[in-house]
Amino acid sequence: MTTPERTGLNRGVSMNRPVRVAFYGVGVISSLIAKALLEKKGVQIVASIDVADDKVGRDLGDILDLHQKLGVVVARDAETAFSKAKPDIVIHATSSNLNKVYPQINECIKAGINVVSTCEELVYPYAKNRAIAEELDRFAKEHGVSVLGTGINPGFLMDVLPITATGPCLNVKRIKVTRMMNSGRRRIPYQKKIGTGLTEKEFREEIEKKSITGHVGLDTSISMIADALGWKLDDVVELPPQPILADRTTKTNYATVVKGLVAGLKSSAYGILSGERIIQLEFVSHAGVEEEYDSVEIDGEPNIRLKIEGGVHGDIGTIAMIINSIPKVINARPGLHTMNRLAIPSATPAELNRYIESSPKEME
Amino acid sequence: MTTPERTGLNRGVSMNRPVRVAFYGVGVISSLIAKALLEKKGVQIVASIDVADDKVGRDLGDILDLHQKLGVVVARDAETAFSKAKPDIVIHATSSNLNKVYPQINECIKAGINVVSTCEELVYPYAKNRAIAEELDRFAKEHGVSVLGTGINPGFLMDVLPITATGPCLNVKRIKVTRMMNSGRRRIPYQKKIGTGLTEKEFREEIEKKSITGHVGLDTSISMIADALGWKLDDVVELPPQPILADRTTKTNYATVVKGLVAGLKSSAYGILSGERIIQLEFVSHAGVEEEYDSVEIDGEPNIRLKIEGGVHGDIGTIAMIINSIPKVINARPGLHTMNRLAIPSATPAELNRYIESSPKEME
Repeated sequence: MTTPERTGLNRGVSMNRPVRVAFYGVGVISSLIAKALLEKKGVQIVASIDVADDKVGRDLGDILDLHQKLGVVVARDAETAFSKAKPDIVIHATSSNLNKVYPQINECIKAGINVVSTCEELVYPYAKNRAIAEELDRFAKEHGVSVLGTGINPGFLMDVLPITATGPCLNVKRIKVTRMMNSGRRRIPYQKKIGTGLTEKEFREEIEKKSITGHVGLDTSISMIADALGWKLDDVVELPPQPILADRTTKTNYATVVKGLVAGLKSSAYGILSGERIIQLEFVSHAGVEEEYDSVEIDGEPNIRLKIEGGVHGDIGTIAMIINSIPKVINARPGLHTMNRLAIPSATPAELNRYIESSPKEME
Repeated sequence: MTTPERTGLNRGVSMNRPVRVAFYGVGVISSLIAKALLEKKGVQIVASIDVADDKVGRDLGDILDLHQKLGVVVARDAETAFSKAKPDIVIHATSSNLNKVYPQINECIKAGINVVSTCEELVYPYAKNRAIAEELDRFAKEHGVSVLGTGINPGFLMDVLPITATGPCLNVKRIKVTRMMNSGRRRIPYQKKIGTGLTEKEFREEIEKKSITGHVGLDTSISMIADALGWKLDDVVELPPQPILADRTTKTNYATVVKGLVAGLKSSAYGILSGERIIQLEFVSHAGVEEEYDSVEIDGEPNIRLKIEGGVHGDIGTIAMIINSIPKVINARPGLHTMNRLAIPSATPAELNRYIESSPKEME
């Protein structure tokens, strides 16, 4: 089971040395996380791995356009890189797909390193593949490390936030969560991904080809809500994304969307019990949204009407959820964790190592 | 340490038998909790104790005006009552004061029973008296039971909710939480407690005599927020409650408040760092409030503006927070817990025993 050496490595973050962080996958989100981590104190990036030929062998500082070397060269082989660098935690960001990330997470666990991952399906993996989830939990316990999937959504807005909002309810009949985003304020690849500027016909063809997928993770969020509330759902249904057509010409930094063309999309999903949609998630993202918000409507005793005015920016939110989970994952008892079973989310102060050391450890 | 018998008693709630609940203190809130618990399945009230002569010896059903006996007679002595009834958890509701409840909580721990308490200062006792908090933690661990103080406020609206809302923040500069309540919709004793209908002079005299105290627990909430965010505050300041004078004549079920008389009060408290009020809590409660709400304003990256429209009813919220904490406390690892270190809040389904049995146990 947990060897003293592993315990020393992963459980003993001290304010006298920085937290050692590695990256598994150096894409857009990892780069943003790395930049945000460099703003913190008491943290050191010690390794990074990726499969892309144009990244392997280069200094991470160059890839992140930092105009300075970080002394961390992107490696191809995780085992070698991790055994040399001895990170306390791996920030994993390669894919949304549980089956794809499963062997990668296992590599980290085997090396005795805690993992926090952006993989959407890992946020509540029991829904997608219970066998994999249980195997990850068992393997993580065996190696004395903690694993968590998180992000802004899934991971917060459409699961943790509504679950938390049911805390003061004597009973809950129905939950509806809506995310209303102005995609014109987001990254250009994101605007492309949701079909901005296409004709309705082109949009439907892209849906057929699965090159437009809509928001990934609504089913994951529904399963987490149901687990937290003790609801045994009959079914979880995700509808195909629907195009939202511009009702007037709208300009973004990616495209000028003429009236009648696709401005963005709507993804809907339902958790169904006895024929009723007791969980309803609606993700709406298009150019020209005037009021951005995230809202939670709970029908119960009492009703709860919660709203985040202006919404939460997706990229910033995901970066923050990952970074803010580092202390919780390092201090958690070994195993696979999900956000609904972990301590409430919270921002981290500037000095990450000091905060981790002074926070209570679950294994004590 | 934990004897097998105790483990069996407190850790083995099965769907084949009800959760056994006892009450320590049978006042207004306990009575509301008991009534709400009787609406759930898989739960049995097995004991109740109180010091009041007009309660001891009477059936709990009569005290709750249920028009039926519950077969639970209010006892005076906790030790005898608990050793006979063998509850899984005690719902403790006697006082806001940590020093007063300390020996009572210890009695429960000594009897090997988990505790969830409405005591405001127990919600984050490290602020009020670190020695007592650490002693409770040590004693609870020694006896293999879990202890938690919770409620709507402190316990949720002005601490857990704002802490959770910082989850997607890369950094936080300042937090302001406002609770805006229409006291005219609350219980009559509550309206009396906040000075409704007094002259300003009478109000200030009551403040002097400490018979009007304002909202209890703002300092507790501030300390919990600071702990969660890793902020070492220089000071926590609670201002004396300020009267809010009616700007027009307002009628409630308790009093007709003529213009110029006290309609209610405002309690403010601040967490101060380097001379700046980085945590600001404002509790406003008076007759004639038109828009009730609970709001959280976070200045940081990003800013978060969260609002619960209509607010959360204090009594219902506290009852629900207590009941919804039962599964978490029973399944938690032994020790003194605080809401910022416990799993995210969530509503409980109708069948309490089934839910407790199927939820993961921290001590496994």
